[in-house]
Amino acid sequence: MYKDSIVLLEGAIDEIKLKLDLIRKNKIIKNERDPISYITSRIKTEESMKQKLMRKNIPINLDNALNKVYDAAGIRIICSYVDDVFEMANILKQYDDMEVIKEKDYIKNPKSNGYRSYHLILKVPVNIERNVKKVYVEVQIRTIAMDFWASLEHEMKYKKNIKSQEMIVNELKRCADESATMDIDMMSIRKMIDEYD
Amino acid sequence: MYKDSIVLLEGAIDEIKLKLDLIRKNKIIKNERDPISYITSRIKTEESMKQKLMRKNIPINLDNALNKVYDAAGIRIICSYVDDVFEMANILKQYDDMEVIKEKDYIKNPKSNGYRSYHLILKVPVNIERNVKKVYVEVQIRTIAMDFWASLEHEMKYKKNIKSQEMIVNELKRCADESATMDIDMMSIRKMIDEYD
Amino acid sequence: MYKDSIVLLEGAIDEIKLKLDLIRKNKIIKNERDPISYITSRIKTEESMKQKLMRKNIPINLDNALNKVYDAAGIRIICSYVDDVFEMANILKQYDDMEVIKEKDYIKNPKSNGYRSYHLILKVPVNIERNVKKVYVEVQIRTIAMDFWASLEHEMKYKKNIKSQEMIVNELKRCADESATMDIDMMSIRKMIDEYD
Amino acid sequence: MYKDSIVLLEGAIDEIKLKLDLIRKNKIIKNERDPISYITSRIKTEESMKQKLMRKNIPINLDNALNKVYDAAGIRIICSYVDDVFEMANILKQYDDMEVIKEKDYIKNPKSNGYRSYHLILKVPVNIERNVKKVYVEVQIRTIAMDFWASLEHEMKYKKNIKSQEMIVNELKRCADESATMDIDMMSIRKMIDEYD
Repeated sequence: MYKDSIVLLEGAIDEIKLKLDLIRKNKIIKNERDPISYITSRIKTEESMKQKLMRKNIPINLDNALNKVYDAAGIRIICSYVDDVFEMANILKQYDDMEVIKEKDYIKNPKSNGYRSYHLILKVPVNIERNVKKVYVEVQIRTIAMDFWASLEHEMKYKKNIKSQEMIVNELKRCADESATMDIDMMSIRKMIDEYD
Repeated sequence: MYKDSIVLLEGAIDEIKLKLDLIRKNKIIKNERDPISYITSRIKTEESMKQKLMRKNIPINLDNALNKVYDAAGIRIICSYVDDVFEMANILKQYDDMEVIKEKDYIKNPKSNGYRSYHLILKVPVNIERNVKKVYVEVQIRTIAMDFWASLEHEMKYKKNIKSQEMIVNELKRCADESATMDIDMMSIRKMIDEYD
Repeated sequence: MYKDSIVLLEGAIDEIKLKLDLIRKNKIIKNERDPISYITSRIKTEESMKQKLMRKNIPINLDNALNKVYDAAGIRIICSYVDDVFEMANILKQYDDMEVIKEKDYIKNPKSNGYRSYHLILKVPVNIERNVKKVYVEVQIRTIAMDFWASLEHEMKYKKNIKSQEMIVNELKRCADESATMDIDMMSIRKMIDEYD
Repeated sequence: MYKDSIVLLEGAIDEIKLKLDLIRKNKIIKNERDPISYITSRIKTEESMKQKLMRKNIPINLDNALNKVYDAAGIRIICSYVDDVFEMANILKQYDDMEVIKEKDYIKNPKSNGYRSYHLILKVPVNIERNVKKVYVEVQIRTIAMDFWASLEHEMKYKKNIKSQEMIVNELKRCADESATMDIDMMSIRKMIDEYD
């Protein structure tokens, strides 16, 4: 089951990467700034896919893996500036061949721990020979600073003896605010620079 | 003009490469033989694109470069065995989102100099943000032996003082026949081996 | 001249990248944290190589391009945390087959505009068949935050009408301090997290 | 044990690939023909490494895996023409930092089944931080035709019920001779073409 789904999930990721690649090249030949700093992607492991289905009390099979798990395929788009994040979200929402299933703006409304990011669930058609399947992909769009913070916060989740450490949680929250301020400051400076020839 | 066309031509090549990649991965997870040995691609240079338009007495601009030149974007699919070449041609002709514009089977009907290959001109949709353009791609499908022969024959074309050398031309023709025989022999042996567990 | 130097300069960059790659893989199999976030590299363009030699009143030829220009080949190592920057600098300084020519710690002593980074000039042996040439490579090691700041400051340098804009310069300086603080804060949190199982 | 050896084995392969890459680039800037068509590489699996040590009655550990197995790391260099194969072998034997441990010319002296290829066992220094280890790499150099034949012969070995099939063995032997003739013919034609401007 997992092997079959992998081909489809990777195919869906590659479809979006191809679109992103064309967006970037097109900006560059028009002498516009590349809004993307870099892109990463991942497929959920077999183990964590099964656990997700089990938690939801859904039978474990290929169709359910593809139809009931929205984040089996994930793409992360890292932008330099906050306005680039929103621009990329808008561009991705406009394609005729992809459907927007869900949308969450954790930048205007950060999570309580300080997490910021723009999330989209897209439904992407994948062609294999004569078959077309629709596959869900979770796209997370964020700045470099948001991504760095998220990677640190993520590390904390892997430590089992750390849960009650209020100090770390508070420090992380404070750093999230600090980093949000810096994102705004850097963007403001860039906008000032942009006004000159 | 050239820079704008490059993004579209590369986009079209990438669309087909993505399809080929999915075909191969899908074969592999099904424990079938990968019919493709390797893939190469190229974009016509600006100079040779202009010359082609000039030879045809067509004004040099982006639309003509995209609509009147069929081989501005080229993909070459190298297969191990002759039957894989025909299988790949059949698969590529079946996609609903690509149109077959032209088709030449230089394997059943080799050129007089000995050239063998299967040629397809496909019309491929390329999405850039909200715009969709149709772009021509020439796909050449051949065996390793056909490809090796073609690369040697190609080298001869670059020598200006060589034209009248009948001996080389004859030797090349003889080698083309030799290599066609070997392609059949190797495929026959593979088919014999395939019958065993 | 330029083409010949390119092979050597790229060779020197690839030698260092191979070393960095082995360092990372070795950390990962030992279950240690990968100190490197990502690596970029560039070769100086022919134009800017010539200008540098001209400014120094040195004849333009291959030997001078390789012997008098220290930053013709450049590698940038981006680390997540400040302590990783110093660790990477220490590791790179210990190889028997590379010589440290120059060393600048702009992290302990930032430039007046706010620029922070650790710079090394290394002399690297490059083997081409039986020939060995020593080639200089400038290695810049910095955190993600230092790199982001530097890319914004760099953009300002390309604007010719911007020079007197004291406000932007002051804002950039303030952001550099802000980002240095964040680098320390993030590292402190990581160290707190590291203490737990 | 296996994980540790992997880093060293991959490092040794990468060292040789870097050398090959520089040889090719250097040929190209000198407007000489690239002698290499393409390169592949592989690391022996843990299972087959253990079996090899067991067959030799040698204790299974990292040192033995690195010191007693000569083909744990393998590189295959595929050339277009037979003379390129010998040129590449000569170049690789001349490096001061690599030692030639073994050398087999199965082109002048093909195996009885028809196998042709040039084999080298090289001892390659791999630097990880301050440590230098010497690692064996088996290099197989062959033409496209030799490689294609070998891949078909290899497929036969995986079929357990095929052993007594004399006809296939004979056909393979005949094809090996045929393909050796073609290698010579193609090289002869190339040499004739090379004589012209």
